[in-house]
Amino acid sequence: MSGSTFGNIFKVTTWGESHGAGIGVVVDGCPAGLALNEEDIQVFLDRRKPGSSQFATQRKEADCVEILSGVFEGKTTGTPISMLVRNTSQRSSDYSEIASYYRPGHADYTFDQKYGFRDYRGGGRSSGRETIGRVAAGAIASKLLGELGITVTAYTQAIGGIEISMEHFDIMEARQNQTGMPDKEASQKAEAYLKECMANLDSAGGIVACRVSHMPAGIGEPVFEKLDANLAKAIMSIGAVKAFEIGDGTLAASANGSSNNDSFRMNGTKVIKSTNHSGGILGGISDGSEIILRAYFKPTPSIFQKQDTVTKDGEDITIQIKGRHDPIIVPRAVVVVEAMTAITILDMLLQNMTARMDKIKNFYQQ
Amino acid sequence: MSGSTFGNIFKVTTWGESHGAGIGVVVDGCPAGLALNEEDIQVFLDRRKPGSSQFATQRKEADCVEILSGVFEGKTTGTPISMLVRNTSQRSSDYSEIASYYRPGHADYTFDQKYGFRDYRGGGRSSGRETIGRVAAGAIASKLLGELGITVTAYTQAIGGIEISMEHFDIMEARQNQTGMPDKEASQKAEAYLKECMANLDSAGGIVACRVSHMPAGIGEPVFEKLDANLAKAIMSIGAVKAFEIGDGTLAASANGSSNNDSFRMNGTKVIKSTNHSGGILGGISDGSEIILRAYFKPTPSIFQKQDTVTKDGEDITIQIKGRHDPIIVPRAVVVVEAMTAITILDMLLQNMTARMDKIKNFYQQ
Amino acid sequence: MSGSTFGNIFKVTTWGESHGAGIGVVVDGCPAGLALNEEDIQVFLDRRKPGSSQFATQRKEADCVEILSGVFEGKTTGTPISMLVRNTSQRSSDYSEIASYYRPGHADYTFDQKYGFRDYRGGGRSSGRETIGRVAAGAIASKLLGELGITVTAYTQAIGGIEISMEHFDIMEARQNQTGMPDKEASQKAEAYLKECMANLDSAGGIVACRVSHMPAGIGEPVFEKLDANLAKAIMSIGAVKAFEIGDGTLAASANGSSNNDSFRMNGTKVIKSTNHSGGILGGISDGSEIILRAYFKPTPSIFQKQDTVTKDGEDITIQIKGRHDPIIVPRAVVVVEAMTAITILDMLLQNMTARMDKIKNFYQQ
Amino acid sequence: MSGSTFGNIFKVTTWGESHGAGIGVVVDGCPAGLALNEEDIQVFLDRRKPGSSQFATQRKEADCVEILSGVFEGKTTGTPISMLVRNTSQRSSDYSEIASYYRPGHADYTFDQKYGFRDYRGGGRSSGRETIGRVAAGAIASKLLGELGITVTAYTQAIGGIEISMEHFDIMEARQNQTGMPDKEASQKAEAYLKECMANLDSAGGIVACRVSHMPAGIGEPVFEKLDANLAKAIMSIGAVKAFEIGDGTLAASANGSSNNDSFRMNGTKVIKSTNHSGGILGGISDGSEIILRAYFKPTPSIFQKQDTVTKDGEDITIQIKGRHDPIIVPRAVVVVEAMTAITILDMLLQNMTARMDKIKNFYQQ
Repeated sequence: MSGSTFGNIFKVTTWGESHGAGIGVVVDGCPAGLALNEEDIQVFLDRRKPGSSQFATQRKEADCVEILSGVFEGKTTGTPISMLVRNTSQRSSDYSEIASYYRPGHADYTFDQKYGFRDYRGGGRSSGRETIGRVAAGAIASKLLGELGITVTAYTQAIGGIEISMEHFDIMEARQNQTGMPDKEASQKAEAYLKECMANLDSAGGIVACRVSHMPAGIGEPVFEKLDANLAKAIMSIGAVKAFEIGDGTLAASANGSSNNDSFRMNGTKVIKSTNHSGGILGGISDGSEIILRAYFKPTPSIFQKQDTVTKDGEDITIQIKGRHDPIIVPRAVVVVEAMTAITILDMLLQNMTARMDKIKNFYQQ
Repeated sequence: MSGSTFGNIFKVTTWGESHGAGIGVVVDGCPAGLALNEEDIQVFLDRRKPGSSQFATQRKEADCVEILSGVFEGKTTGTPISMLVRNTSQRSSDYSEIASYYRPGHADYTFDQKYGFRDYRGGGRSSGRETIGRVAAGAIASKLLGELGITVTAYTQAIGGIEISMEHFDIMEARQNQTGMPDKEASQKAEAYLKECMANLDSAGGIVACRVSHMPAGIGEPVFEKLDANLAKAIMSIGAVKAFEIGDGTLAASANGSSNNDSFRMNGTKVIKSTNHSGGILGGISDGSEIILRAYFKPTPSIFQKQDTVTKDGEDITIQIKGRHDPIIVPRAVVVVEAMTAITILDMLLQNMTARMDKIKNFYQQ
Repeated sequence: MSGSTFGNIFKVTTWGESHGAGIGVVVDGCPAGLALNEEDIQVFLDRRKPGSSQFATQRKEADCVEILSGVFEGKTTGTPISMLVRNTSQRSSDYSEIASYYRPGHADYTFDQKYGFRDYRGGGRSSGRETIGRVAAGAIASKLLGELGITVTAYTQAIGGIEISMEHFDIMEARQNQTGMPDKEASQKAEAYLKECMANLDSAGGIVACRVSHMPAGIGEPVFEKLDANLAKAIMSIGAVKAFEIGDGTLAASANGSSNNDSFRMNGTKVIKSTNHSGGILGGISDGSEIILRAYFKPTPSIFQKQDTVTKDGEDITIQIKGRHDPIIVPRAVVVVEAMTAITILDMLLQNMTARMDKIKNFYQQ
Repeated sequence: MSGSTFGNIFKVTTWGESHGAGIGVVVDGCPAGLALNEEDIQVFLDRRKPGSSQFATQRKEADCVEILSGVFEGKTTGTPISMLVRNTSQRSSDYSEIASYYRPGHADYTFDQKYGFRDYRGGGRSSGRETIGRVAAGAIASKLLGELGITVTAYTQAIGGIEISMEHFDIMEARQNQTGMPDKEASQKAEAYLKECMANLDSAGGIVACRVSHMPAGIGEPVFEKLDANLAKAIMSIGAVKAFEIGDGTLAASANGSSNNDSFRMNGTKVIKSTNHSGGILGGISDGSEIILRAYFKPTPSIFQKQDTVTKDGEDITIQIKGRHDPIIVPRAVVVVEAMTAITILDMLLQNMTARMDKIKNFYQQ
């Protein structure tokens, strides 16, 4: 069954393999009248581009986006926005060997079990390059949310066991360094740790956090389409994410109600919460506080140490992976988490527009 | 927008409020020819029923299910299965007071923000009673999975800070005690802890784990409909769940590739993994190992201590909640996690049937 | 796969068989704040009730609706509205015979081919009683559309070869007579024709027309979700409908562009069309004129003449159907066409709310 | 809301405008292992290409397709197949004038009403060029159906009032002449009629018929996802189609049950129908006979006669359309009807695979 589309109203369909002709996305359901050009997309794509860091694969990928439809005279038309990034740096020869065996921690085995064969070049459809489509769509969602005053900001919270300190929080720092951490000190420690991992022919994981500010209350649906449920799906659909949490997350399980509940208080005529253990969502619906979520990424499975595995033909072998691989994907994944969050938030804002009779009447009687 | 339906092929639509006429569910897309009767459903519902434990609300809820359609001569017909549980123990008077203010940690405020008003009786649609529909549907999914040899088993892994030990694991214990823990010793500690919470007019949270055994490899879709992404949505859509993880989950973020990767090995003609850090899913597709997931529940928000909040009219007040409330929802939530897992696994098994041309040809040429 | 849900935002899920415990529907996605009670639904159900006409089955069906959820203090809450009609007049014995063979023109054979067996009592799920759920949902949609000033009106346009004359058009007449024709003279001719059919142990078909007045321009989506495409699906999903047309419909195929095009003209500050060959839809989007559609119904397949057919076991036989059957379903189908039209129009009005950036900004900044 | 995706399992998403960078389609959910190359697609696209007939626009459109993803080593991989056709013959200057007014019979006015503005070049998204994506997807669906022994064949049944005779039926003729009619005599009459229309600066409509042969019984879902309901939506979503019918269609409304019912008979061990008034579908499910449907197309709205209309600024004007326009779209629409039929049939074949427990068990236990 098809699984390449995300969203109910703002619908994002990605396509493409690591070593095919290109990677792309169709965004259907984007409202008409949003100012948009290729530069708006490119700045987001550049944030996930490899080659700029010693901790990212040294493959050169220009990743230039072309908008093929849905924009006219600088504005979205309300019809599908198709975007294309041609693949350019394709050394398929690097991958011919892996056609015959299953890399541990990768989707090689599961693709073969599902489809009977696979496009083995660079991971094919399960390659991280698939996220180009997500990031391009996320750029549009972020721009649209910006028009409504809502901002979505992701950053690296931890690498290996090294966590940022909220006291040092500086988002500009995160956008400049090689870790994506908004804390210079933690970032330097993480760099040292990553060098150690590389020296050991090993890889590392980490945590990406994302915050949504100026979120209106009342967004999300009560039962299966809870805002946090959809955020969980969005984030867990990113390769290598193994856990998701909202607000206090895992810590809530060992807390008590008296400490976990957030009191409501009036701030002038506005209802606010004294604390934000809930992470901005109550009963699946936004409560007007900042939304805070975290994604836990496993270490890159492509490591240069010897590993045991089996061949397609059912023989035990020992392999040593070659090629160009990120020792950690977290810094490049920050913008992917931001993109998926923005897409989800926007989709649910649009879904919410039909919730109330009085607002529908008002809408159609203006 | 509508948000009360879950699943793409095996579609589950729940309806009903805590103090309305009843609670129900329509299961559309259940294959024809599955033996099914009301007793199959009732045994699942009885597992979530309150009143049988000192740690659950003392409300008496018979929760007897009636199958209204979709079953003929003891077998499912392939058409929608509608199931109804009448509400009986409704003391709406308990709730009249809460119409005027917003309980901390509940969805009162967010519902009002979304819809302009709410059915305030017992939480209305955001009540835990909504999960009756999920459990009834999950009973069908579990039975069908059983026919394919797949079993889904959930249990309490932790309450507050008290965790089970896998060395003591005994699932029969979990089905008999009041905590749902498959470890007698841990369960007794947890009981003592819960009594302490109750003495403090406080509440507790915990962790529910769920395992899917004998899962075939190749189930799940590569990109947005990853098996783990859908499980995450399913589980996070249960009220009070604040985090979700698969396999090593949050721990993977601080691991290295060399320890996190699972080696493949041949076991006769079968491919197996030497370890199962992945929790049975690689690249969003089942790898043939046991699927392991965990749901982190926050403490029950209804506590009997004094709490600060605001009224609908915008005044700061202090409240003290009355009535009958679970000091912890985890033991009763075990079967809900099991149900949502079963529904998701089944839906994706059905989705997978169209993945390969050779199997489609075989299907239509038999 | 599941096929019992219609609509994207205003989602209607019907369930139930002719001779099961009952028939019902869940409406999910109805906006909060619509005044609604059971009487609003019952008046629609009474329009499809048999037993009131000599041309309808003499089965007695009370068809009393109960609203089980989604309405609180007389208003919809935004959560699913579940409605139930218990089956009461069930003489299953009438149907035991048909378990063994396939009635011509019915779905007996195709259900057995699809599912391996069927609930043969009264047609089971393919019975006309399934439309009770549609009509109940349509009652809500119609009421909501009425709040926006939009009216949906269906009537019988033809029975056999007898057509109404638009010069005699009187909708009150249609609501009182036994044919549903808004033309007394035509209705009397049709009655005579139907008596003749009954005398011949035969049945008749006919045409139902439906008009949507005060429809705003701009509703419908350009490509696959065209307003007319969705109306076509809605109407063709009613059992026994064999053709659907919009505006001039089949006649357009033999017209010329010069006669088929509708000129635009200004009427004060309002754009109007000089004619309405388009039936109110251009390019799949409403043009502000009245929407006009027609559904062509085949004759009731249950006739009392001898017919050739085969048994489940593969023998040629001749049968003579007994029991109580409508000689024509058209008069009772009028309200079903009206219901499906209202549901579709409403769903697309709701879908349209996210089409424009300026309106979204306005919505969220009020 | 998004409306550019068709299908539940075999999902087709088209994008692109007449005068944008290109036109394309993403097919998600195509099973893995189907042999496929660009030539398979190109032969279908060539059938809708203009420039080869005196009755089609004289614009030169090469319409060369590029497969960008989803095919590896000559076979589909189960992941999205993205296809791109670059626009080449773009004389936007032809269209600058129409930016200011609304062409009668076109979607200009309705797009402006919906979106606030429109891409006016060549009809933008509502251009017939959008069907390139449908035809490319239909080529894949047809090839896959062919592997299952199912063939889909469309042809022109009528132009203006001129109908083919089934006695002269010759599908090879239809593929060679300029009308798409499988009847040489009728085709010649139609050519004469079209020349007359062109001499009168006028346009013509017609009927396209489509037949699906070797269709297995049991395909389609009982209620809203009836096979004929989905075919109706598929066909009515093609621009300019004003009516849809299945089997006897409109004629059924004036028939009697005794003549409209199809008797079942045994043919050896096979159940067959003596006649096929039903058009191969009973109760929304295929009955094993040939499926027969018809689409009624209105005359091309772009005619060269003077026409009354209004400007965007609300002034009455008289216009005379220039440029290159088909005097009839029917011959080029034949392959579009065939494509949409193939897509729908395939999608419902795939949906049907989960209908029966015994077949699911068999599938997973092989």
